[in-house]
Amino acid sequence: VSRHLLDYGDPLGFMPLREAIATYLREARAVRCEAGQVMVVSGSQHGLDLATRLLLDPGDRVWLEDPGYLGARGALMAAGARLVPVPVDGEGLEVARGIRVAPDARLAYVTPSHQYPLGVTMSLARRLALLEWARARRAWIVEDDYDSEYRYTGRPLASLQGLDRHGRVIYVGTFSKVLFPALRLGYVVVPPALVDAFAAARGLVDRHPPSVTQAVLAEFIAEGSFARHVRRMRMRYAEQQAALVEAARHKLDGVLEVSPAEAGMHLVGWLPSGADDRAASGTAQQVGVEAPALSTFRLRRSGRCGLLLGYAAWAPSELRAAVDTLAAALRCVRS
Amino acid sequence: VSRHLLDYGDPLGFMPLREAIATYLREARAVRCEAGQVMVVSGSQHGLDLATRLLLDPGDRVWLEDPGYLGARGALMAAGARLVPVPVDGEGLEVARGIRVAPDARLAYVTPSHQYPLGVTMSLARRLALLEWARARRAWIVEDDYDSEYRYTGRPLASLQGLDRHGRVIYVGTFSKVLFPALRLGYVVVPPALVDAFAAARGLVDRHPPSVTQAVLAEFIAEGSFARHVRRMRMRYAEQQAALVEAARHKLDGVLEVSPAEAGMHLVGWLPSGADDRAASGTAQQVGVEAPALSTFRLRRSGRCGLLLGYAAWAPSELRAAVDTLAAALRCVRS
Repeated sequence: VSRHLLDYGDPLGFMPLREAIATYLREARAVRCEAGQVMVVSGSQHGLDLATRLLLDPGDRVWLEDPGYLGARGALMAAGARLVPVPVDGEGLEVARGIRVAPDARLAYVTPSHQYPLGVTMSLARRLALLEWARARRAWIVEDDYDSEYRYTGRPLASLQGLDRHGRVIYVGTFSKVLFPALRLGYVVVPPALVDAFAAARGLVDRHPPSVTQAVLAEFIAEGSFARHVRRMRMRYAEQQAALVEAARHKLDGVLEVSPAEAGMHLVGWLPSGADDRAASGTAQQVGVEAPALSTFRLRRSGRCGLLLGYAAWAPSELRAAVDTLAAALRCVRS
Repeated sequence: VSRHLLDYGDPLGFMPLREAIATYLREARAVRCEAGQVMVVSGSQHGLDLATRLLLDPGDRVWLEDPGYLGARGALMAAGARLVPVPVDGEGLEVARGIRVAPDARLAYVTPSHQYPLGVTMSLARRLALLEWARARRAWIVEDDYDSEYRYTGRPLASLQGLDRHGRVIYVGTFSKVLFPALRLGYVVVPPALVDAFAAARGLVDRHPPSVTQAVLAEFIAEGSFARHVRRMRMRYAEQQAALVEAARHKLDGVLEVSPAEAGMHLVGWLPSGADDRAASGTAQQVGVEAPALSTFRLRRSGRCGLLLGYAAWAPSELRAAVDTLAAALRCVRS
């Protein structure tokens, strides 16, 4: 083993991996970056935690998608932020609403490629409005591109970061979804002006990521295995999603409205208006089906109820069986 | 590969590794712990950062050994602590002085087994006084046992944690010194009452440590390879230290006073009174010898000057050659 893989390493990560990630992100996500801006982290949660600690002071207001990702909410609360829930519609985060409610927010957390959990893609108009607000107010945007690899129709969408001309976007991604969570490797693309500050902070937090796993992953990407893996999984997940959608249309009609999605690893099943999604989720859990309630991801108690249906971890036959089970259980409750 | 090594894991770490660490610490360090109290972290810096974030509020006062470990200083400053430097004498941290200056401190950071950088072992009387202060004031003690494995004379000393009967000590250790830094694995032994809080915080910070390296290390410890490695390295480092001490006595007499140490991976070389250790360290660096100035580890501008001489990374012949080089360079400066 080379000595440089044993000794303390660069706080931003192993350079060959940072180069492989930069190349991948430029090509696949239109991220504008050099390897020097890439910080390797232990998954996206680690990236969110580092970014929010560094960029926020206690009491700072932060826009948060509502409904939104609970891990981001936790990291922001740990940093002492005051959360400003901003609703999400068919075009993504309602930027105008955010500006009306909290124009002076210091940061906005968004999942523009595939909103978590609703699955919406943020429109170009909204992206430009968000970037313009950040530029004018010198606010930061954290773009969490947690499952961007899995887009099934058309070309993968460009990242929000790729549209940024003023260094306001911190782009966060992870290998947890596309490879496996226990790898604990993700990345943050940092605006050039923040690179030194991130490196210094990282040194105090946990010094640097483990070198051997970084070296293995760098090789895996460089030799093309990563790209092959993504293509193969994309085909498999598309089949699994199709199986889930078809089974749901046959078996869950009138109980749960499930539409196909262009991207991601889960679908939203909408419940009839007036239904209680936490009760429905509890019923599902009792028959062995994990289907989190959409309302648990909401900060405000409003909006239509639904269930999250993950399909990445199961074969089509397993998904069909789960839909059968779920249909029987939910119909029981209704009647 | 088992599925549980791929999916999200326990925020406190992989249970077989936590069990192996608990067994090792009970036997080798007289730490009082169950596996459930062990949190696997990415090295001791990560443990210090997690502990200080969780236990301190901005503005809290903290006792810090002076001179002391710079990484701890950085983590404490990042947590917003007000640093209270407490001098170290031949018995370790001067507890009575700490109580006089800042009785209401919320935390004390200490390296009782082998003070960094002076190499002193904290006396039993001081340990008991420190624990009594923490009990009475409900303060926390962070015990950093960073190189406890390498003790060359007599039995390894018991940990401070092993004397604690009131759950005030957070014990931090690392595999960086005894295996290799780039592994990024260390551990924190948490008082039972804090385990749930540490687990919740960890989930928000970076979720959990990488599973595969944890599984490999658990196996390495369980099969006895770790204990063999420590014994072998302990013999090798003892020889290296002896070579350094002997060479220094012959070649550095009157320039640098080097005494043997019972433990650790470095010695302190004391400069004649009135000498400037930063200048001497600069001279050493110019001839290719890394010997950090003791004064860089001090918060107050007082105390005798010296150089830190690490010996773990070099063979006896390399150490002798380095002493020759250093002697020539330092004599040049003096004359």
